[in-house]
Amino acid sequence: MEERLARMCLAAVVEPGRPGVAQLLAEFGAEAAWQAMLTGAESSPLAQRARRVVPQALIDATAAVGLRFLIPSDPNWPNRLSDLADCEPVNDLSGVPIGLWVGGRGDPAELCHKAVSMVGSRASTAYGDTVAAEMAAELSEGGRTVISGGAYGIDAAAHRGCLAGRSPSIAVLAGGLDEAYPSGHRPLFERIAERGVLISELPPGEHPTRVRFLARNRLIAALSAGTVLVEAAARSGARNTVTWANELSRLVMAVPGPVTSATSVTPHRLIRDAEAVLVSSAADIVELLDPMAAQRRWDSRDHRVTDGLDPTLLRLFEVIPGRGSLPASELALRAGCSLPACLAGLEELTQLQLVTQDQSGAWRLATGATRPRASG
Amino acid sequence: MEERLARMCLAAVVEPGRPGVAQLLAEFGAEAAWQAMLTGAESSPLAQRARRVVPQALIDATAAVGLRFLIPSDPNWPNRLSDLADCEPVNDLSGVPIGLWVGGRGDPAELCHKAVSMVGSRASTAYGDTVAAEMAAELSEGGRTVISGGAYGIDAAAHRGCLAGRSPSIAVLAGGLDEAYPSGHRPLFERIAERGVLISELPPGEHPTRVRFLARNRLIAALSAGTVLVEAAARSGARNTVTWANELSRLVMAVPGPVTSATSVTPHRLIRDAEAVLVSSAADIVELLDPMAAQRRWDSRDHRVTDGLDPTLLRLFEVIPGRGSLPASELALRAGCSLPACLAGLEELTQLQLVTQDQSGAWRLATGATRPRASG
Repeated sequence: MEERLARMCLAAVVEPGRPGVAQLLAEFGAEAAWQAMLTGAESSPLAQRARRVVPQALIDATAAVGLRFLIPSDPNWPNRLSDLADCEPVNDLSGVPIGLWVGGRGDPAELCHKAVSMVGSRASTAYGDTVAAEMAAELSEGGRTVISGGAYGIDAAAHRGCLAGRSPSIAVLAGGLDEAYPSGHRPLFERIAERGVLISELPPGEHPTRVRFLARNRLIAALSAGTVLVEAAARSGARNTVTWANELSRLVMAVPGPVTSATSVTPHRLIRDAEAVLVSSAADIVELLDPMAAQRRWDSRDHRVTDGLDPTLLRLFEVIPGRGSLPASELALRAGCSLPACLAGLEELTQLQLVTQDQSGAWRLATGATRPRASG
Repeated sequence: MEERLARMCLAAVVEPGRPGVAQLLAEFGAEAAWQAMLTGAESSPLAQRARRVVPQALIDATAAVGLRFLIPSDPNWPNRLSDLADCEPVNDLSGVPIGLWVGGRGDPAELCHKAVSMVGSRASTAYGDTVAAEMAAELSEGGRTVISGGAYGIDAAAHRGCLAGRSPSIAVLAGGLDEAYPSGHRPLFERIAERGVLISELPPGEHPTRVRFLARNRLIAALSAGTVLVEAAARSGARNTVTWANELSRLVMAVPGPVTSATSVTPHRLIRDAEAVLVSSAADIVELLDPMAAQRRWDSRDHRVTDGLDPTLLRLFEVIPGRGSLPASELALRAGCSLPACLAGLEELTQLQLVTQDQSGAWRLATGATRPRASG
């Protein structure tokens, strides 16, 4: 039995975040661990569950709903998850996932590389929804993936904001990916899957439970370089994700809000107690996650990258759309130059890291390139 | 010429916060300093101004509008101001005031002892006004004086909130106290004067100027143990008061707000850069200013002081009004007990530090006493 299938079977039997499994896997390998589990004592619930597993049925169920099952040795396994190996348990949960069921067209490893987690209250306010969506959209436009859960409130606002931008989003869910939870978010999850990724530690058919949400939170924290808390009342599940982020030495950020709002209590408390850094914009988040990039952006704000462009090049740069991409022929038309001149200009703008070509050959603004203000 | 009059003359001639005056006063004393100024060079503008001063006219002008002129040796001079002697200049301003024109019935020394400064934007939002007023009212109810300027916006909201509570407020103004600036605040200043204090470094007849506002800010910061910033845009005069408070090693606090509001920029920046502590309620402020008192309050929250009261005493305690006071006869009526029983009960509640008697003999809740929730 190969490692992938052994891990799939193990993941179908062992509850996410259950401590001890990591040691088992490290000591014996997945196949031996699975065999050991199968031959466990008659009275062991885990052994009983294991013996009911039909490996081929798991494979079929995974394929039937278009999912992949990733394991740590896969090239598109998000490496950040390995930090969970050395992390202190939270609520008695810990450990690197045995494997991940993954849906959607995105590459988890690539997307997590520049990801920001955004979490908050299910019972968010209009203020929180707006701020989460706007920050997520700006992060997305700047080339960053937003990671969140799948709940109503801030989770949904973060995904919607991110989807409105250039980058896909990642939803980490606490149940099997065959069924949407909450079911009202099925269309949202479908949109996320188009370019992004849906992730779960649980096989199709499994439902979320309280402890599965808590285990899921450790993945949201671990998959990104930093977590932003937008709104959370005094008692909030999002607080748990922040705890994980702190345990994992991730950057913890919190957005303040009106002191008159109950959902400001936890962000304000975290900021006051220096458990989170105050952020009030996507720019703040980017600056904290990548101080060097922020410096470059500030520099380029002082000395606009477009300052040195000759008028033809500037005209060409100005017709690159703010969102989406256009083929060179269309850009030539809009800039009023010949196609050869346009292509030469695009080559020059590429070297200046102002534009980039997508897979279809169309041209878009490079990530981080500052649009000059409309000059007309 | 006595010291008070010499200082009054000096204060009428020297601009507030002008450095060098303190040394002059310390080296020569007020009378000699005034004589030196009078005999200054023909070309010296200060000497020219000094020679135009008619001391008796100053005394008359001060008395005519019901003001006192306080000097550092007065018993009701606020001692905190002496910290200005060793404080680094801000905007080239520094120093203990030469003297203060004071209006209103309050005792500045006593009121400043438990004072909190509250400053913020003139162009405040409804959110800021509400938060400032509510915090000020709660501080006032808890026995703390609120110090602010006299401007529209947060200053006015802070005073109004404080006036709605039990304690008087203090307005520190940048012009002579004979005229209200802004004139629309004349009724507000009159209400402040009824129980509180109006303070200015400038004699009657003088108008506020930009530099006088800056010099005034050092008094607002110096007169209290801590300054709370409620709303301030990126460029705001209130920021200057915060700078003074930091220079004076006062506690600097800031109230967060919606990140979508321009008036949240400076509070959020101060919090993020650890130049201010985030506060979201009057309780936060009190806890920071007096951690021991906060501890007592928390203790009494865990073990309610009313827990041990016998039913009769509890009924009596419950009819003590949340604001204001009532005579024992009325309390006896409301609690449904005889007057002697009521008086005996009030005596017992006094020993438990739950109630206190005011000057008129009426009874009120003691400062810091926790009201039991309505039990009916």
